[in-house]
Amino acid sequence: MYTIQDLANLVDGSVVGNPQTLIRGASEIQSGKPDTITFLANPKYKTYLTDTKASAVIVNDSGLLAGKTGIVVNNPQLAFAIIMEKFSRKIDWFEGIHPTAVIHETSKIDENISIGAFCVIEKNAKIGEGSKIGAHSIIGESSVIGKNSTLHAHVTMYHHCECGDNAIIHSGSVIGSDGYGFVQSGETHVKIPQNGKVIIENDVEMGSNCTIDRGTIGDTRIGSGTKLDNQVHIAHNVKIGRGCLITGHVGIAGSATIGDFCIFAGQCGVAPHVTIGDRAIFAAKSGVTKSLPGGKVYAGMPAREIRETNRRDAIYSQTKQLKKRLELIEAHLNLAGSNDT
Amino acid sequence: MYTIQDLANLVDGSVVGNPQTLIRGASEIQSGKPDTITFLANPKYKTYLTDTKASAVIVNDSGLLAGKTGIVVNNPQLAFAIIMEKFSRKIDWFEGIHPTAVIHETSKIDENISIGAFCVIEKNAKIGEGSKIGAHSIIGESSVIGKNSTLHAHVTMYHHCECGDNAIIHSGSVIGSDGYGFVQSGETHVKIPQNGKVIIENDVEMGSNCTIDRGTIGDTRIGSGTKLDNQVHIAHNVKIGRGCLITGHVGIAGSATIGDFCIFAGQCGVAPHVTIGDRAIFAAKSGVTKSLPGGKVYAGMPAREIRETNRRDAIYSQTKQLKKRLELIEAHLNLAGSNDT
Amino acid sequence: MYTIQDLANLVDGSVVGNPQTLIRGASEIQSGKPDTITFLANPKYKTYLTDTKASAVIVNDSGLLAGKTGIVVNNPQLAFAIIMEKFSRKIDWFEGIHPTAVIHETSKIDENISIGAFCVIEKNAKIGEGSKIGAHSIIGESSVIGKNSTLHAHVTMYHHCECGDNAIIHSGSVIGSDGYGFVQSGETHVKIPQNGKVIIENDVEMGSNCTIDRGTIGDTRIGSGTKLDNQVHIAHNVKIGRGCLITGHVGIAGSATIGDFCIFAGQCGVAPHVTIGDRAIFAAKSGVTKSLPGGKVYAGMPAREIRETNRRDAIYSQTKQLKKRLELIEAHLNLAGSNDT
Repeated sequence: MYTIQDLANLVDGSVVGNPQTLIRGASEIQSGKPDTITFLANPKYKTYLTDTKASAVIVNDSGLLAGKTGIVVNNPQLAFAIIMEKFSRKIDWFEGIHPTAVIHETSKIDENISIGAFCVIEKNAKIGEGSKIGAHSIIGESSVIGKNSTLHAHVTMYHHCECGDNAIIHSGSVIGSDGYGFVQSGETHVKIPQNGKVIIENDVEMGSNCTIDRGTIGDTRIGSGTKLDNQVHIAHNVKIGRGCLITGHVGIAGSATIGDFCIFAGQCGVAPHVTIGDRAIFAAKSGVTKSLPGGKVYAGMPAREIRETNRRDAIYSQTKQLKKRLELIEAHLNLAGSNDT
Repeated sequence: MYTIQDLANLVDGSVVGNPQTLIRGASEIQSGKPDTITFLANPKYKTYLTDTKASAVIVNDSGLLAGKTGIVVNNPQLAFAIIMEKFSRKIDWFEGIHPTAVIHETSKIDENISIGAFCVIEKNAKIGEGSKIGAHSIIGESSVIGKNSTLHAHVTMYHHCECGDNAIIHSGSVIGSDGYGFVQSGETHVKIPQNGKVIIENDVEMGSNCTIDRGTIGDTRIGSGTKLDNQVHIAHNVKIGRGCLITGHVGIAGSATIGDFCIFAGQCGVAPHVTIGDRAIFAAKSGVTKSLPGGKVYAGMPAREIRETNRRDAIYSQTKQLKKRLELIEAHLNLAGSNDT
Repeated sequence: MYTIQDLANLVDGSVVGNPQTLIRGASEIQSGKPDTITFLANPKYKTYLTDTKASAVIVNDSGLLAGKTGIVVNNPQLAFAIIMEKFSRKIDWFEGIHPTAVIHETSKIDENISIGAFCVIEKNAKIGEGSKIGAHSIIGESSVIGKNSTLHAHVTMYHHCECGDNAIIHSGSVIGSDGYGFVQSGETHVKIPQNGKVIIENDVEMGSNCTIDRGTIGDTRIGSGTKLDNQVHIAHNVKIGRGCLITGHVGIAGSATIGDFCIFAGQCGVAPHVTIGDRAIFAAKSGVTKSLPGGKVYAGMPAREIRETNRRDAIYSQTKQLKKRLELIEAHLNLAGSNDT
């Protein structure tokens, strides 16, 4: 339980109304509950402001509060995220190394860690200070986890991979499986050894059931601060820049290079060996078939600038118009008999 | 081994031919085997009826049998499903709690359960009567499994989630991972805490390697009787109604609301925050970009009513026709030189 | 460490330059390192040949070497794959059966196997000579693994499935989960029992987090030498031929039949019950809606021959052309007022 003043201090905001108002939780504006705090970021939800039962609202303009108690900050959603953290449930992680875990004697495990039930930590693996490894997770031979990272239950990290500091990896994700590399010899697909690593930089978050393949000779790399949603597939030798947002079911094929701060909406695909510039944005289901410059918004299969894709999508009505105009000309010229289109 | 009469009783059907015919298994009509029973539902397979080696056929019209032994019911496929169950292999589940499982002392585990090898049942978790938890599965802190539900091996349920009665969850599925929520602050994507639950209602079946994210503040909910195929991704705050069919690789983005009895064919995607009415049907690879009313069939990206999508798909031949008509007019007018299209 | 002569012998190649040159590893031509060997297969990379710091290059034409040391073979990429194998890290697998594994007394386990920590080998399961089962993997009741196959960590194989010899299955893959089969009865989707098997033939490789459903009555089958990438979904009763390449996020729906040596690029989908001929190739994101003959290249949704899909994609510029020609005619005829398209 916090006072509004406590929470305002936390986010460098200024209080409107009674600073001693007590807050016991967070709620959504459209279903606000007494004794909770909520926020208004999207003007679409402004209508809820009058009626919300939340005891306080975080806004970016004190004029919006109109008699309500609240906190004024520049970025209400950011402030809300920080405040929500205070009201989050604290979940127990096992302190230390669970007695059922199988830990290789040559592994190096720092202080203040949590290693859950049935974990397997292989030869020469390292786990940095403050990191948590959920039950049933595996850290392969010579793989390294940095400081304060969290691997939830059932994560598989193969050998010789790296994960930086403050990373979060959700359950069922697989890091370091072999890249899909074969060379044809007659009717046989001969396996190309996959000897590279996966390198996950600091502050990456990865959703559940993602798959990140190791490089063939060089490495597969996910840049710092990049966030992957669930069921993302990153193929071998891919390089992803910093701060990218890659959402559900996106697949990035082998040796593609993605710039910094790119955004991929759901179910996008990227072809092998292409290069994408910084800050490119891809609408859902885009299929990137060639290298594309950054700083633009793309859509469609093949992915084109979204205005171009929209223009192409509009040709159906254009064609209907052209047909009408053609019929007018045909009538004018007494040309007929072909209007069976 | 059953007589045809036994099986007919089981499905409220009437026997045609010798009711004492013995049946030892079930087979497909096109590869029917002696001493088995098969069924005819799809008229496409009618030609197999004469030649099938199956000893009995379930039909909805005795006239179809023409001298063959069989059972007549309203819904032959349904009757066949019920009868197949009688011939299904019985697989051993461990009775009780496997000695290798790690069970928290505060968890509540009912009678007649199966908890497999290396399961982890966390603090305050509850498992209802008659439920089965496969080897290596994890039930997180304060999560609840109802009665007679089956979680196959390697299922991960995070903390504070709920699964109702008679549900089936296949291997590798992850329930309750954090939703994909970030707020931008400069070049940093700040994590929004994900404090809601996943609620899986009664009679849900979920395929293998699905991912269901927990809600941010409210809950993610999968309505009773809804069936998910493999590798389905359900994002945070999604509400799915009753009796939906959601097939392989479908992804439903955050805060979408899906009505009752909707059908999504393979690889469909649904955008965040949209609302879909009851009994909407989506063809494979549909991309739902906005809210759509129920009771209709949609296709395409963006998803439109399927007739509209088909009309749009037809404009290629329309354009070819228009070009021919244009050439006729140009010839008529002695206009030329531009037919290099 | 090998001499160039040793490596040339390994791949039946002929040495150009000093056969005693020592090689300690493999590298990529564009980032070649001293004391390593690289290869040139793609003429695109020819420009790197002069500057590469690699000590030797595998080529298919001695003329390319121009003073450099190298090996001449017919297929440089194949030779490189074979040579890379010599420089691959050797990862420790547990020798024998890990003491934490739970092995049913009725299972049959051959010589020279590796069964990792926390594996579960169920009743009547069989594991052939030389096979390796990674930590946390499960071999279900009566399932069979052939000789010299490798299942990485966290693989789930349900009961009564089969995997042949020399197969590789990566982490998180699920083999034998129930097919998605329901029959509607009023508002209830009644489960159709899934009593068939999954049969994985020899030399199959399967990536991470794939899902292969068991057949309903008959079997789901993946033909010998077929290679699956990550997150591939194969539904019940599917038959896949020999030597197919099926890449990331491809989904093949129930009862589809795929010929030999077919190629599916990323995120393709195949509708239920269709039949695809041998050596058909599908571009990324193709949606196969009907049976298609082999030996052709397809693209698009619905999948059509790629030339047809490209022609259709080109109608946008055609329509712009037609509009211009129409405007010329309208001007010629003094018809106006409708050019508001």
